[in-house]
Amino acid sequence: MMKKNLTSDSSLCRGRRPVLDLLEKTPRLCGKLLIANNVRPPFLDEVLTAARAAGVVYQVVAPEALDKISGGEKHQGVICKLIQSKPAELEEFLKTLDKNIPALLVILDHIEDPHNLGAVIRSAEAGGASGVIYAKRRSAVPNDTVIKTSAGASLRLPLIQVANITRAIERLKEFNFWIVGLSEKSETSIWSEKLPERTALVIGAEGFGISRLVMENCDMAVKIPIKENSAGSLNASVAAALGIFEWARSQEKNK
Amino acid sequence: MMKKNLTSDSSLCRGRRPVLDLLEKTPRLCGKLLIANNVRPPFLDEVLTAARAAGVVYQVVAPEALDKISGGEKHQGVICKLIQSKPAELEEFLKTLDKNIPALLVILDHIEDPHNLGAVIRSAEAGGASGVIYAKRRSAVPNDTVIKTSAGASLRLPLIQVANITRAIERLKEFNFWIVGLSEKSETSIWSEKLPERTALVIGAEGFGISRLVMENCDMAVKIPIKENSAGSLNASVAAALGIFEWARSQEKNK
Repeated sequence: MMKKNLTSDSSLCRGRRPVLDLLEKTPRLCGKLLIANNVRPPFLDEVLTAARAAGVVYQVVAPEALDKISGGEKHQGVICKLIQSKPAELEEFLKTLDKNIPALLVILDHIEDPHNLGAVIRSAEAGGASGVIYAKRRSAVPNDTVIKTSAGASLRLPLIQVANITRAIERLKEFNFWIVGLSEKSETSIWSEKLPERTALVIGAEGFGISRLVMENCDMAVKIPIKENSAGSLNASVAAALGIFEWARSQEKNK
Repeated sequence: MMKKNLTSDSSLCRGRRPVLDLLEKTPRLCGKLLIANNVRPPFLDEVLTAARAAGVVYQVVAPEALDKISGGEKHQGVICKLIQSKPAELEEFLKTLDKNIPALLVILDHIEDPHNLGAVIRSAEAGGASGVIYAKRRSAVPNDTVIKTSAGASLRLPLIQVANITRAIERLKEFNFWIVGLSEKSETSIWSEKLPERTALVIGAEGFGISRLVMENCDMAVKIPIKENSAGSLNASVAAALGIFEWARSQEKNK
């Protein structure tokens, strides 16, 4: 199966809520908006108002035309063609970060499920992370499933694609980040002490956890304490959210 | 569409990981195990060993027979017929709870998506909750999607079905529970003070939040502080997990 990527021409944002989010929050990414001629008020008024406010060109078309463009996926009568947006380069991204203020980065050590990727990006944005770093190979890419699952966060938060996670970690250390691996195998509770002001939180793949080489490059490893005799693990996106918001909580307490 | 329920005769557990979890962790719920005759080692040995250890009867059948029983859903060559298990009654359940020790209950004010229900149950078990309370009507029910999404937790954790959430809340107050509503509309951060030792955490429906009547019956409402200009909300199961583990963290700090 071909994976769709934000860099391809075919990037689409489908569905009422995702399209409205896009128009309201990141109009710069909206190319053309297509609306089926069977879309009725009040949603029709809502989407037209949002498109006008965003300065986005729109066209009313037959529902069958949308079905064809959508390639079988649900669209609820609205599709927005996205302007090509390349994933950020690590070095460019690092230039935008102040070296001395609190910051959280999320590093994904090969999350493969786009729903999990979207969920992590949504939590990362909500928790105040500055960006999400992911590997070029063997990873889910920010396609339109990810846009939807992330409630549009994947269009707003910097997503940095890297060829090699270990090398990215080395660079982040030079930028004063502490590399914190989230691993159920760790003996240290994430609640035992405050997370560093500048944290790069490493999340492992579903079922496999953080790879050995990446773990060796972490400054510390912490676990979410879970009750004995339970399923024995958390969903990857839930674990990520708990790590992200634990950092946010630490920062609030530092104020 | 008919919803399948654990109380119906047709309850099935499908798929390799869910069936192994069931055999290993809750053998009392396993009726008959069906294995397709094209299942090969090493998984075949693993599932047979688990079935023998659990004292569960098994039968090897043609893959087509499994397809038919499964009704079109994926089964990976193994299906376990579940022994009927009724949801617990609130009054019966309350009798099993000590009135004076720390405890967490999770109350779902009409979560409708079975994936979210499963995710919440998994987090509830992992975070040490004593049970999950949900409404009889307009709610997802603990069917086999929920078993799978909850990694089997829905078979282990008491799930209490109630006719009326507000009435259940009144009963819980008599059992010394503080009713804490999780709502993005609250002004109070969940981190501003420790959650009560005996907390009943109310989670609202996807997109709608907690209903007005239920909110009026909460002793307090708290929000997960999220960054401005982000998506503006968290996924319901992520928010639930953050609430559940914040309670677990408070308890750990009390030790």
